[in-house]
Amino acid sequence: MENKALNAEIISVGTELLLGHTTNTDARDISLMLSEIGINVKYHTVVGDNPQRLADCIEIAKRRADIIISTGGLGPTCDDLTKMILAQSFGLELEMNEDERACLYDYLTNKGYSKTMTENNLQQAMLPKGCTVFHNDWGTAPGCAFEKDGKIVIMIPGPPKECNAMFGSCAVPYLRSLSDETIVSHAIHVFGMSESALDQLFREEMNAMTNPTMAPYAKESDCLLQITAKAKDAETAEEMMKPVIEHCLDVLGDVVFGIDIDSVEERVFKLLRENKLTFAAAESCTGGDLARRFTDIPGASEFFLGGAVTYTNGAKSAMLGIDPKLIEEKGAVSREVAKEMAERIRAKLGADLGIGVTGLAGPDGDGVHEVGTVFVSLAAPGETFVRELHVGNRRTRSYIRRVSGNYIFDMMRRYMLGLPVIPE
Amino acid sequence: MENKALNAEIISVGTELLLGHTTNTDARDISLMLSEIGINVKYHTVVGDNPQRLADCIEIAKRRADIIISTGGLGPTCDDLTKMILAQSFGLELEMNEDERACLYDYLTNKGYSKTMTENNLQQAMLPKGCTVFHNDWGTAPGCAFEKDGKIVIMIPGPPKECNAMFGSCAVPYLRSLSDETIVSHAIHVFGMSESALDQLFREEMNAMTNPTMAPYAKESDCLLQITAKAKDAETAEEMMKPVIEHCLDVLGDVVFGIDIDSVEERVFKLLRENKLTFAAAESCTGGDLARRFTDIPGASEFFLGGAVTYTNGAKSAMLGIDPKLIEEKGAVSREVAKEMAERIRAKLGADLGIGVTGLAGPDGDGVHEVGTVFVSLAAPGETFVRELHVGNRRTRSYIRRVSGNYIFDMMRRYMLGLPVIPE
Repeated sequence: MENKALNAEIISVGTELLLGHTTNTDARDISLMLSEIGINVKYHTVVGDNPQRLADCIEIAKRRADIIISTGGLGPTCDDLTKMILAQSFGLELEMNEDERACLYDYLTNKGYSKTMTENNLQQAMLPKGCTVFHNDWGTAPGCAFEKDGKIVIMIPGPPKECNAMFGSCAVPYLRSLSDETIVSHAIHVFGMSESALDQLFREEMNAMTNPTMAPYAKESDCLLQITAKAKDAETAEEMMKPVIEHCLDVLGDVVFGIDIDSVEERVFKLLRENKLTFAAAESCTGGDLARRFTDIPGASEFFLGGAVTYTNGAKSAMLGIDPKLIEEKGAVSREVAKEMAERIRAKLGADLGIGVTGLAGPDGDGVHEVGTVFVSLAAPGETFVRELHVGNRRTRSYIRRVSGNYIFDMMRRYMLGLPVIPE
Repeated sequence: MENKALNAEIISVGTELLLGHTTNTDARDISLMLSEIGINVKYHTVVGDNPQRLADCIEIAKRRADIIISTGGLGPTCDDLTKMILAQSFGLELEMNEDERACLYDYLTNKGYSKTMTENNLQQAMLPKGCTVFHNDWGTAPGCAFEKDGKIVIMIPGPPKECNAMFGSCAVPYLRSLSDETIVSHAIHVFGMSESALDQLFREEMNAMTNPTMAPYAKESDCLLQITAKAKDAETAEEMMKPVIEHCLDVLGDVVFGIDIDSVEERVFKLLRENKLTFAAAESCTGGDLARRFTDIPGASEFFLGGAVTYTNGAKSAMLGIDPKLIEEKGAVSREVAKEMAERIRAKLGADLGIGVTGLAGPDGDGVHEVGTVFVSLAAPGETFVRELHVGNRRTRSYIRRVSGNYIFDMMRRYMLGLPVIPE
């Protein structure tokens, strides 16, 4: 194999993908694994269970990629054609692999399928002559790889669990042995700055960079700066990225909430653990979403004591003891009520921190505030912070709920790090 | 437009897809919507933010598809090139759309971005000359469509929420207006019966049908039977499907929770409105997800009074007044505690119905129950129902939370319809 970076195309075969019944997680999983070993994925293609169209896609892939990876179409049903068509287009014959045939026989007998096992089940053991066989420990159809005409061809079964496990344990080692370059990538996660502001801030530098590279990406209500380096090994790539990451962190300051992290709440989880703090939540417009997001993290019960979803005025009084007069006077959506919610849930559950959120998620307004007006509050020992948000009156209900959650989690992060809780 | 079925290719543009950082849900969502209006999706292609490779993909799509749909690459950052390249390959110029420019200006000002708004933000209003503009109510970048050289070209922004909403509300009506055959489709939603059981029940009939057709699909924790008819107009298609739907409803009985409905909670919402009933929720293992799901529905505050997320034993006592001795004796995950939770939240908030959920969502167990053991309870006037679930100890945390919610919402549905609350 030559020394240059290899380009790959992933061809996923399956009519169910084109009907929209299944999401192509196989291509995502494989892409992630390939980028980690320095192989550039240049294209994903999805095509149905149709011999001619599949053959055409393979011809296109041959012209533009060094590595062709197929997922799907290796199973026993009659429309599983990938193996046959791929072998044909590289001029290879299929032959029965006796080891795989024996394994299949055992496996199916073992699973109690012996009575219904027919010839088409055993056809799964027909493989291109001379290929490297990838035994399937997670299902029935084996995968395989071969090199021909300067191309590397890899076939992996379609069911996501099998695909993911087999690609990682069979195809990655196979490819690693052929390549001598590694790509490593880190994401700097930012809240409180837009993708376009990020882009402007770093545009000149980004344009001048070749290795490492840097690119901003927007997520639903936050964004990230992706730094990627290519080198002979992971250690060298890390060394190359280190000054770049340090520079970005310097420039960005406290809007960075983490590196290689899934969400703001994950950062809050870690900070609560480090600081041995607990919290409780009183939610109105977020309707339980704050609690749900935090409790999605395994182990959440250590830091999250509980919450009240006080979706009505009555519930604010019955569950938190807020004076109905205050609500009448100031309105349910107000700085004062948000403050009371945070302080009262904190006291009620004996938590270190209390949070309160009240606002208008829409689509209907309350005649006073614009949709998207949200008050988020953080009650800490000796001090309560309230921030007024205007998320935008044309945003969806779910966006307003989501971004309100990000603001409150970010306030918790800032508090625990000793940063200004409400940035000016 | 000719009378024959049109073939489409979806080209998704974005390096983040090829790096495996994002899953291509846009292609899935669009495919689903296209199949409902009788357009066959033949290919999905994913390509990075690279002008030459994108242009090549467009050339390939021109040869094999009637409709080319792009997602992504319409935003303000420098690597968003889709519009430019697509216009170029069809020989069209881009021009500033003054309406969209004004909207963008308003929108960004409204979001408080006015200070950081720069020329690159307004570039989003540059659109191919003569195109049909799709205004974006969910984000900043408009989409568009044009017909040229016998092809239909549609461009939609990449962020999944924007893509989904805009494709459904702008591109689908646009495409419908070009075709003279209509496909209409209805989904019969089922909870408490597996996809393979559905398949078995109707297999013979399904195989014998051509128009209408019928097919079962699995969703995350429920399933559906899709009935589809093709005719010259929607009315005729509806007439053709009517007897089929009636027959299916007869055969399926009370496992059907609705037709063309997004979720069980939506059905519960309607039944609460019809019956003028309110409810309140006490959640442990679902951690706020029940409240969040119900309050995702606009208008939820009319029927949902509030909830307690009693994630710890202390919170169960502090917020609901449950006797700590009962919890100690029976365990937090028990029939008795679930019953108390439902009854006490009902009383506390003065709701007609109270629900309680306590269980083990994993990954860690409690040494007593298997992960996936969940007790769901419904307190109604004069009677409280408790059901013990074993969702499966090899399921993910989020699946266990999700399916527990479906069970409790389904119990509410059954109660309000006078069906056995717990099916035998």
